[in-house]
Amino acid sequence: MSTAPLLEQLIEALRCLPGVGRKSAQRMAYHVLERDRDGAGRLAAVLAEAIERIGHCEQCRDFSETPVCPLCASGARDRSLLCAIESPADRLAIETATGYRGLYFVLQGRLSPLDGIGPRELGLEQLAARLAEGEVRELIVATNPTVEGEATAHYLGQLARANQVPSSRLAHGVPLGGELEYVDRGTLAHAFTSRTRISD
Amino acid sequence: MSTAPLLEQLIEALRCLPGVGRKSAQRMAYHVLERDRDGAGRLAAVLAEAIERIGHCEQCRDFSETPVCPLCASGARDRSLLCAIESPADRLAIETATGYRGLYFVLQGRLSPLDGIGPRELGLEQLAARLAEGEVRELIVATNPTVEGEATAHYLGQLARANQVPSSRLAHGVPLGGELEYVDRGTLAHAFTSRTRISD
Repeated sequence: MSTAPLLEQLIEALRCLPGVGRKSAQRMAYHVLERDRDGAGRLAAVLAEAIERIGHCEQCRDFSETPVCPLCASGARDRSLLCAIESPADRLAIETATGYRGLYFVLQGRLSPLDGIGPRELGLEQLAARLAEGEVRELIVATNPTVEGEATAHYLGQLARANQVPSSRLAHGVPLGGELEYVDRGTLAHAFTSRTRISD
Repeated sequence: MSTAPLLEQLIEALRCLPGVGRKSAQRMAYHVLERDRDGAGRLAAVLAEAIERIGHCEQCRDFSETPVCPLCASGARDRSLLCAIESPADRLAIETATGYRGLYFVLQGRLSPLDGIGPRELGLEQLAARLAEGEVRELIVATNPTVEGEATAHYLGQLARANQVPSSRLAHGVPLGGELEYVDRGTLAHAFTSRTRISD
């Protein structure tokens, strides 16, 4: 046994992080021990506190330290708009890029039966109940334009229809600054068929 | 503020890991919170314990929970052989690949004046003292074949000579399974000039 058992444990433990294999875990362990023990100490403390205190918002299922997250609790948002997204990261993106003032519903994933992720795992009963309340006037479906994302979007559309709530989907098309020559065929075909009239 | 402050802290803290930028830190935080809280808990605990208890071996400077690491303490190793390496990872590699039975000296880095890493940071006074004791009959220099590694090797060679200890360097040449066509010119030139006679 040439390395300290505790070091072995650390390397193993680091592998719980996504995209971290044996080699990078080793590199990380050596790095923090040799160059950044303070940072490692902070990480250990914050990590322990985070898994202890961060739960999910009762309303939008986003991560939150409080039962209801600040955004859902805020009176400044339009409660008649609900935007369904796959992950909290998508919310950050939408908040920074758009002027959206409505609320969110975070699926924390996408329909993927093979991985055992169904309507229950995405909290869709909860979403259905929310839609049934009648406060929501539009469900904006902002899942990723992947196969699973599209399937999820389709499912959400039906869910909205079943509750007489109009639903919308983010527009697909040629990305700004993209060159037609390099846009994939699916996107180009979609952008071509759903072309919009130039107003005079 | 759309994300919980604690979540922000976690994302920031994760960036102390090498090669982890803002985006991957975010991905890691979301992943452990959503899918692997147990793993995260283990990581937090082990990390805290590791920075608390893992120090350096007094003799070889490798990471160790005890003042003297198991390998240095072992009576089964040949104390007349000392192998100088840049990092603990190199020791693992040598232990698994070769039948080396001697001891190690871990520099925990390489001479790199621009980064403020000099003989002191690599514990070379300690190494000199060790060589002066006279127990060591050969210093095997196994630094990496990089510019800094070579410079360090040169320095170590002088250090050994100053203490009348013979020193050796790992052989350079064509890697096994490598094709001459694809070997870089420096390596090929080196392998060519230091060719060995085929024994009958």
